[in-house]
Amino acid sequence: MADHFADRLSKAIQDKGTCATVGLDPVYSKLPKQIIERKDLNDEMDLPAAMDAVFEFCTRVMRVVSPLVPAIKMNSAFFEKYYWEGVENYYSLIQEADALGLEVIGDVKRGDIGTTAAAYAESHVKNCEFMDMEDTISPDAITINGFAGLDGIKPFSEAALEQGKGIFVWVRASNPSAGVLQDFTDAHGKRYFEHLAEQVATLACEPQYMGQSGLSNIGMVIGGTTAEQTQQLREQYPHIIFLVPGYGAQGAGAEDCVKFCRTGGDGALVSASRSIIYAFNDPKYIEQFGDDWEKCIGQATLDMKQQLADALAAKV
Amino acid sequence: MADHFADRLSKAIQDKGTCATVGLDPVYSKLPKQIIERKDLNDEMDLPAAMDAVFEFCTRVMRVVSPLVPAIKMNSAFFEKYYWEGVENYYSLIQEADALGLEVIGDVKRGDIGTTAAAYAESHVKNCEFMDMEDTISPDAITINGFAGLDGIKPFSEAALEQGKGIFVWVRASNPSAGVLQDFTDAHGKRYFEHLAEQVATLACEPQYMGQSGLSNIGMVIGGTTAEQTQQLREQYPHIIFLVPGYGAQGAGAEDCVKFCRTGGDGALVSASRSIIYAFNDPKYIEQFGDDWEKCIGQATLDMKQQLADALAAKV
Repeated sequence: MADHFADRLSKAIQDKGTCATVGLDPVYSKLPKQIIERKDLNDEMDLPAAMDAVFEFCTRVMRVVSPLVPAIKMNSAFFEKYYWEGVENYYSLIQEADALGLEVIGDVKRGDIGTTAAAYAESHVKNCEFMDMEDTISPDAITINGFAGLDGIKPFSEAALEQGKGIFVWVRASNPSAGVLQDFTDAHGKRYFEHLAEQVATLACEPQYMGQSGLSNIGMVIGGTTAEQTQQLREQYPHIIFLVPGYGAQGAGAEDCVKFCRTGGDGALVSASRSIIYAFNDPKYIEQFGDDWEKCIGQATLDMKQQLADALAAKV
Repeated sequence: MADHFADRLSKAIQDKGTCATVGLDPVYSKLPKQIIERKDLNDEMDLPAAMDAVFEFCTRVMRVVSPLVPAIKMNSAFFEKYYWEGVENYYSLIQEADALGLEVIGDVKRGDIGTTAAAYAESHVKNCEFMDMEDTISPDAITINGFAGLDGIKPFSEAALEQGKGIFVWVRASNPSAGVLQDFTDAHGKRYFEHLAEQVATLACEPQYMGQSGLSNIGMVIGGTTAEQTQQLREQYPHIIFLVPGYGAQGAGAEDCVKFCRTGGDGALVSASRSIIYAFNDPKYIEQFGDDWEKCIGQATLDMKQQLADALAAKV
């Protein structure tokens, strides 16, 4: 295992031949009926049963996609909604993912001022140091919210660097109302998200954060549907890895998303959640694989890889 | 219990005669030696022992301050650092606080786009609906990060309204680097935090969010050290409750903090953490109370109340 997150991720992207990333946003009611109709798992209001169903689903999704993609993105909100049991499951799934050789992005969007940011970094970035809990590890990278500025970012970036991990600062979101705040523009035409990106990039390019791949372990989250506003960031910040959510169900296409890749295809992770993990509801895949839900997910992942590869080839 | 958060809070402020709020940011190594030197609690690297020590400390602090203040603010980061056991403790302490009649602010700073924000609201705003977990409740209000704009705020505000709870959107932070991003200014001289406040206030003043107190259940977090930049928000947004952290250890004084109160003394919660919960390290209180750490905390709380009352009287 390379000891710099960006180098490790670049190698994983090269090995798997794709920057496609699968997002785990599990919702009980949407899980395959083969799981939620099982007697021991068939009660959404029974926390342990619901949690076991989610855990089984996520584990099986990861087994399907781990030979195909370099990374998964786990959306913390969908585990936190199951209280402390959900949080325990989140950490258990990180171990599973790690054992499968996946890079794990913890999508936690934490952010606060210095001392509080440092407390968040303890469990979200650093690996566990409590007695008898040595198996508990944190994700390879997490998403953070940089609202507090560099004081709030550094506790995360410093902890990450120390442990060969990474962070992605949320710079431009993909939802409809995001632009109202994030495109707020100064007298020189600079938008808020560009100003934020500048702050992040200045820190990211400090030599200690740079890997041999020429990429920093401090990256940025940029919604895939925002390429029109944000694609210039790729050229502007050659050392940055972009985490690009929104592919598929949220409406971002392959052409837009690969704009954030470097020429060789690395430098970005393009993430799709619902369009992959619920592919077994898509008539296109049902027709091919019937109710073999894992095959549906596998094929949807292969299709996404192909679409990204085609778009990347067309771009060069 | 009034069914609107702002009304309930206003009444609590009136009953206790203060807007002082105690922040729980517990750090094991800073706990009173009477707790951490106890044999069963005396190992910081033993998660259950450390957690029990934190729980005992927080419970005892709440018992001391609950007759004195209307609310406590629990900083999630300092519980999350103890993994799922910390999260379980966070919820247990909310129950304790509720039983003591305190309003509980969960300082979680969550924020994301719509579907993810809705998932966060499930456990952070709504009370628990899982079987056999009816005792598990969420805080009376939480802090959120509004970076995604109204799409990301509404899932929280709607869930809060439904359950007689509140949210505080983080608008201006108190840390040194916060201004670099938050004071980013447009061509008309409007700063980013003002633009964000405008968005929040527009939603907050929709009639369904307004209580009989004339205050909305959607408030704003404004760092107490920023009064110079932010005090005009009080006049500008008469319907907003301001959560004002930073009193004491972070350097905000009473005169600055009460600028966010309405004339009657409500409309704001002024929060102090370290200067209260570690008052037993302050020579001033040691001299008075020796190693009776609970009396030190109680006196520090009374002193804070007096300082705020004096400042409020001087303001009118």
